Amino acid sequence: MRSVSIIGIGTTPFSVLEGKSLKEIATMACVEAINDARIAKEDIQTFYLGNYCSGILVGQETIAPLVANSVGLRKETPCTKIEGACCSAGIAFRDAFLMVAAGVCDFALAAGVEKMTSVSTAKATEGLASAMDQEYEARTGLTFPGFFAMVARRHMYEFGTTIEQLGMVSVKNHNNGVVNPRARFRNKVTLDEVMNSRLIADPLKLYDCCPISDGAAAAVLCPTEIARQFTDKPIEIVGSAHTLGYATMYEMDSVTTILPTVLAAKQAFEMAGLKPGDIDVAELHDCFTMAEIVDSEDLGFFEKGRGGPAVEEGLTQVGGKIAINPSGGLLSKGHPVGATGIGQVYEIVKQLRGEHENQVRGAEIGLAHNLGATGQVATVHILRRR
Amino acid sequence: MRSVSIIGIGTTPFSVLEGKSLKEIATMACVEAINDARIAKEDIQTFYLGNYCSGILVGQETIAPLVANSVGLRKETPCTKIEGACCSAGIAFRDAFLMVAAGVCDFALAAGVEKMTSVSTAKATEGLASAMDQEYEARTGLTFPGFFAMVARRHMYEFGTTIEQLGMVSVKNHNNGVVNPRARFRNKVTLDEVMNSRLIADPLKLYDCCPISDGAAAAVLCPTEIARQFTDKPIEIVGSAHTLGYATMYEMDSVTTILPTVLAAKQAFEMAGLKPGDIDVAELHDCFTMAEIVDSEDLGFFEKGRGGPAVEEGLTQVGGKIAINPSGGLLSKGHPVGATGIGQVYEIVKQLRGEHENQVRGAEIGLAHNLGATGQVATVHILRRR
Repeated sequence: MRSVSIIGIGTTPFSVLEGKSLKEIATMACVEAINDARIAKEDIQTFYLGNYCSGILVGQETIAPLVANSVGLRKETPCTKIEGACCSAGIAFRDAFLMVAAGVCDFALAAGVEKMTSVSTAKATEGLASAMDQEYEARTGLTFPGFFAMVARRHMYEFGTTIEQLGMVSVKNHNNGVVNPRARFRNKVTLDEVMNSRLIADPLKLYDCCPISDGAAAAVLCPTEIARQFTDKPIEIVGSAHTLGYATMYEMDSVTTILPTVLAAKQAFEMAGLKPGDIDVAELHDCFTMAEIVDSEDLGFFEKGRGGPAVEEGLTQVGGKIAINPSGGLLSKGHPVGATGIGQVYEIVKQLRGEHENQVRGAEIGLAHNLGATGQVATVHILRRR
Repeated sequence: MRSVSIIGIGTTPFSVLEGKSLKEIATMACVEAINDARIAKEDIQTFYLGNYCSGILVGQETIAPLVANSVGLRKETPCTKIEGACCSAGIAFRDAFLMVAAGVCDFALAAGVEKMTSVSTAKATEGLASAMDQEYEARTGLTFPGFFAMVARRHMYEFGTTIEQLGMVSVKNHNNGVVNPRARFRNKVTLDEVMNSRLIADPLKLYDCCPISDGAAAAVLCPTEIARQFTDKPIEIVGSAHTLGYATMYEMDSVTTILPTVLAAKQAFEMAGLKPGDIDVAELHDCFTMAEIVDSEDLGFFEKGRGGPAVEEGLTQVGGKIAINPSGGLLSKGHPVGATGIGQVYEIVKQLRGEHENQVRGAEIGLAHNLGATGQVATVHILRRR
């Protein structure tokens, strides 16, 4: 396996992109990434596109060939749509990485896209619910807010995590999103506003939940040994993992640990020869405030049960022990499901290039963590400035 | 890139599998393939699952982790759903092949699944239509029978292909399906019956069209150098390609040539160091009778325009110049969309092992051709007995 680097990135805002089709927003991100890499579109040799449920949401499947043609890739290019719930783009990114790392090709385009705001909230909820096992979980009435609400209640019971600590994740991430032009919500919120927002699934309130969004993100990968021909700031992928969790909540040994995150982190850190303490900046899958706290523990940034106090003590802020979600995270930036994993990579690359709007000073090593469904699948990528 | 062989195959019947969920039928095929390979399920190191539109049809996404857990794969296993319309399983098979060929892992499980008969025909049609570009093609009213009907009319105009020749494809494939226990339709049909069946899209009639079905198929791949530890009859993958076609019909230079088939055949034959004349048995994507004739030309078995007469002359029958679709093909065996590509591989492996119910005598080299949407994507795999 040879070393692989990111030489180009592109994205749309994560927002309500009215009047833009799924194909158009994916194309925008891909074209931007190819231009950023300073290669020709004809140079791309494989294309992986993460998308969760465009079939349900906009009645469009087979989107990898559609987007590939819209971008103008060569007809000889294998074009593959990857679906893995909220982790779709993380998997697409990893598969593109593997193809270059294993020497199958030199230039890979990875992207993710979702178009969610053109349908009713009921339809979007139906789409999201299809990520759960329909036979054994969805039919019990469990929802994603419900799942993370139970995780929160158990975390509070086991470790003394407080509702206020959950709220502080939201305050931090909204504060981070203010300066991010790609973020859907760019307003600060106070802890009082979070605590007094509408109850969604006790103890989670509206501001504990990420918003439905449209968006796309893309990255161009090539072997590190030639990366400097295309950019002065190649970002090396030093760790990559993709793992499996339990299919349903009732199978989990513990709901305060999301198994695939633990396994993926172990693999990715081993591959990179690094420890959690080496990470300067991380984009974690904060679909709910509770998720960020659990993620930060499962990834090894804090001991299990210490994620809540860490937020309260400011350790996860920009300038703290480890900057978590300086982009605003899913909570403020938005969560166009199939795009999120590469959206996180986009933010980390900007940080490691030293070009981020909410720059973590001297950031050299970053981590992106993408999670799917009720912890069924996760990817972890560790990126490093070269 | 190292040589890769198939050491295990499994499948369900392609049929109406009432009372069996998507997850169950996929699990059945995977478990059979793993048992056939005489390895433990814990040996599997990566899993690619082809599926087209389970979200639309049965409200279930995120099926790769679900099926992986149902099969009992290790939690460290990357599990990836691949979507590429009717070519989903062909792509899943190719990605699994690449992972082993490139040395990323030793044991890969590739599968495909679709559950179509539990919904109304209208819903299934809605699902199928989502394979077309919604903005530029589906909204014109084009359907898949409509597309291949236009291909047929043009093929008849350009090359003198006759409606009877189309019908003879159906007669041949239904005749082949009679002895295949995996086939949905196991009855012979006469040319008169085909010609007098209900008109679907002129000139295509009911028996020119493949049936909606449920089904799953799976294969276990490993490096050829260790394959004989697990089976006396390893089947080597000597050619593999996955290519892109036009996004819409109006962009096609010619509707009587499906570009990605031509490109994939070229790549796969080059990789294998073989010519079309070397192929003993082929499973082609005969979603419609017209498709088989076009496929047989695009793959180089017959000159462009000679596919119709070749059928009439019996050249594509078992015992003819090249046996095409001795399984019964999609027309008789059925077309559970996301399973078809690996269903074809299953049939070819049975042929090359010398174990097929409709055996092509002395078959040593076989080809599987999978096509997606209105020719947007294709895969070609060439398999060889070792």
